[in-house]
Amino acid sequence: MTVSPGNKAILLIADSERDADMLYAAGLFVPDPFTFLQVAGRTTIMMSDLEIDRARTQSKVDEVVSLTDYSDRAKKNGNANPGLIDAVSELLRERDVQGISVPNSFPLGYADRLRERGFEVAPKEDPFWDQRPVKTDDEVATIAGVSRHTEDALRMAFGILADASVKDGLLHGPEGPLTSEYIRKRIHVYLLERDCIAQHTIVAGGVQGCDPHNGGSGPLHPGEPIIFDLFPKSTKTGYFADITRTVAKGPVSNAFRRLYDTVLEGQEIALTRVRAGVDGQEIHREVERLFESRGYETGAKNGRMQGFFHGTGHGFGLEIHEPPRISKVSQTLVAGHVVTVEPGLYYPDLGGGVRIEDNVVVTENGCVNLTRLEKMFEV
Amino acid sequence: MTVSPGNKAILLIADSERDADMLYAAGLFVPDPFTFLQVAGRTTIMMSDLEIDRARTQSKVDEVVSLTDYSDRAKKNGNANPGLIDAVSELLRERDVQGISVPNSFPLGYADRLRERGFEVAPKEDPFWDQRPVKTDDEVATIAGVSRHTEDALRMAFGILADASVKDGLLHGPEGPLTSEYIRKRIHVYLLERDCIAQHTIVAGGVQGCDPHNGGSGPLHPGEPIIFDLFPKSTKTGYFADITRTVAKGPVSNAFRRLYDTVLEGQEIALTRVRAGVDGQEIHREVERLFESRGYETGAKNGRMQGFFHGTGHGFGLEIHEPPRISKVSQTLVAGHVVTVEPGLYYPDLGGGVRIEDNVVVTENGCVNLTRLEKMFEV
Repeated sequence: MTVSPGNKAILLIADSERDADMLYAAGLFVPDPFTFLQVAGRTTIMMSDLEIDRARTQSKVDEVVSLTDYSDRAKKNGNANPGLIDAVSELLRERDVQGISVPNSFPLGYADRLRERGFEVAPKEDPFWDQRPVKTDDEVATIAGVSRHTEDALRMAFGILADASVKDGLLHGPEGPLTSEYIRKRIHVYLLERDCIAQHTIVAGGVQGCDPHNGGSGPLHPGEPIIFDLFPKSTKTGYFADITRTVAKGPVSNAFRRLYDTVLEGQEIALTRVRAGVDGQEIHREVERLFESRGYETGAKNGRMQGFFHGTGHGFGLEIHEPPRISKVSQTLVAGHVVTVEPGLYYPDLGGGVRIEDNVVVTENGCVNLTRLEKMFEV
Repeated sequence: MTVSPGNKAILLIADSERDADMLYAAGLFVPDPFTFLQVAGRTTIMMSDLEIDRARTQSKVDEVVSLTDYSDRAKKNGNANPGLIDAVSELLRERDVQGISVPNSFPLGYADRLRERGFEVAPKEDPFWDQRPVKTDDEVATIAGVSRHTEDALRMAFGILADASVKDGLLHGPEGPLTSEYIRKRIHVYLLERDCIAQHTIVAGGVQGCDPHNGGSGPLHPGEPIIFDLFPKSTKTGYFADITRTVAKGPVSNAFRRLYDTVLEGQEIALTRVRAGVDGQEIHREVERLFESRGYETGAKNGRMQGFFHGTGHGFGLEIHEPPRISKVSQTLVAGHVVTVEPGLYYPDLGGGVRIEDNVVVTENGCVNLTRLEKMFEV
């Protein structure tokens, strides 16, 4: 862990279930807020009696100290009913800390109380840990493990589509008309069996797929593109994977086939361009240019965006959205970045959209595609 | 929604997946941070283009405005590259807001930038929304719905125990020795099928159950108390349930039977005492006195806590731990509070612990027990 913000101490107060910076720093899941302190490279966490034994075994910090001990000190110093910030203040004074660097998300209530006590509290811009966007080999291997489960879940879902029959213009499965909800639940259960939690999984058919935040609902139809976007988190490690495929229970129209082939071509171009030192903006523009050259326009039509109106990719790891972006904004890729490559085209008038998403790790000479799942439009 | 902090405006910037105060205020799940403003009782959220249509349909606020509109105003006012706080500032100025009340957890980075722009930002102590701990009839019904699924999941788990065989001093199930991990996964999948997400479910046998934060691992044994503590969240509403049962694949020793009966008696006493106007501290002390009178001592032994060393109960709702507590700390119960009642006794020397937990809603004359699941020690 690098000491990013100069010689100041680093302080975090958060739970590590929800706060990825804390999970990254402490290396164990704790459901309630606790304190992390780093002074001159040495890392300390302060834990409640309930968590201290587990923290000593599981955390990756240099030192685990007892919240009760520092609360007792505050009592000895005349504070009859010490709160968390009183104990934190005792710890900071013991370590001769005066200036503190904290994340942007640090709770204002705590910051104000620390400032009242004379500490200088300075929020640092994201990313808080400079190293966090750059994944180690171990982190890449962990993400690849989550990818395997995600790919298997997608294969299972495509099997449901493949087995479906067509009746009255609807897909039918084992329990009647096949719905987005039914397939989504099958995917979630499949992933949970493999210690991955998926939420807001997208199974969106036809026009529903044209809204990238629409999870999809209701019966699915033959011949329409169905977007499957899965981004589960490992309950063991906290790392995500993020894979999208678009498939149809064929046959599909020529217009949909051409849309699919164009998105795939865009993705292949982007995948050949990803490399350390390249600006994500350049990659994104190249994909935009390809789509335009093929006649696929982007912009508002009838009050609704169509075409290619999201970024080409984003970093991920302990959060599903992390720096860097591969988008309109200029951001240079670095070896070790793990990013999605996910162009898409969406045309409500055509009746559907297509998005194809792989995960790659950026290297000095290009990138390694972590996603092994085959790409095919018709099942 | 009551305007708690006087005449000031109320401002929240958070996502509503993880921030319960935001979910309570806005009434819809949004995975990325957005802005909530309340001025003189009128509620407004400011949404990105991706979310604005869904927000207009699903949220319970008075007004939904466009982040793009206010960013454009900031541009017109000379800010070439406006960030979120620039747009928020435009909104605040338009509404003649100068002083803002925010939650304790409000991000320091945003608060500092608002203060630089001349706004007065004051964090308010929890609970931020005074009404949140007091549940409406609808909220109680929603929680009861989650309870039904939780009870069914427990019955399913007890069925696995009932069907188990005993071989070489271990319980055996369909896949060999029966483990905490196996039953936990069955519970998680069962709940997910019913749109509830459970994490950190406790299935802890024998001495493992003596550490209230130990989830349990490895093979389970006949004759030992196994603590099942389930606290799933509805993925549709965000509300929790929180139920604990202790069961054993019998027969059990007389010592365990007496331990179980005493905890059950403690719970029954607590359940008769819960009523609006009562101090939780009094209830907790009465349970403590009962356990002491039965010879069950509480305190550290060989460096480890034993006896009854956690609170009798806690509020819950959109978070698993909410005010009020029924514990050593004085807190008066109010009609509409939904709280757990969960005394426990833990003796490593005896080889196990017992906890029994129901959920009740506080009324003027007593309480209504929301938990219908039978209590039996031996399966």
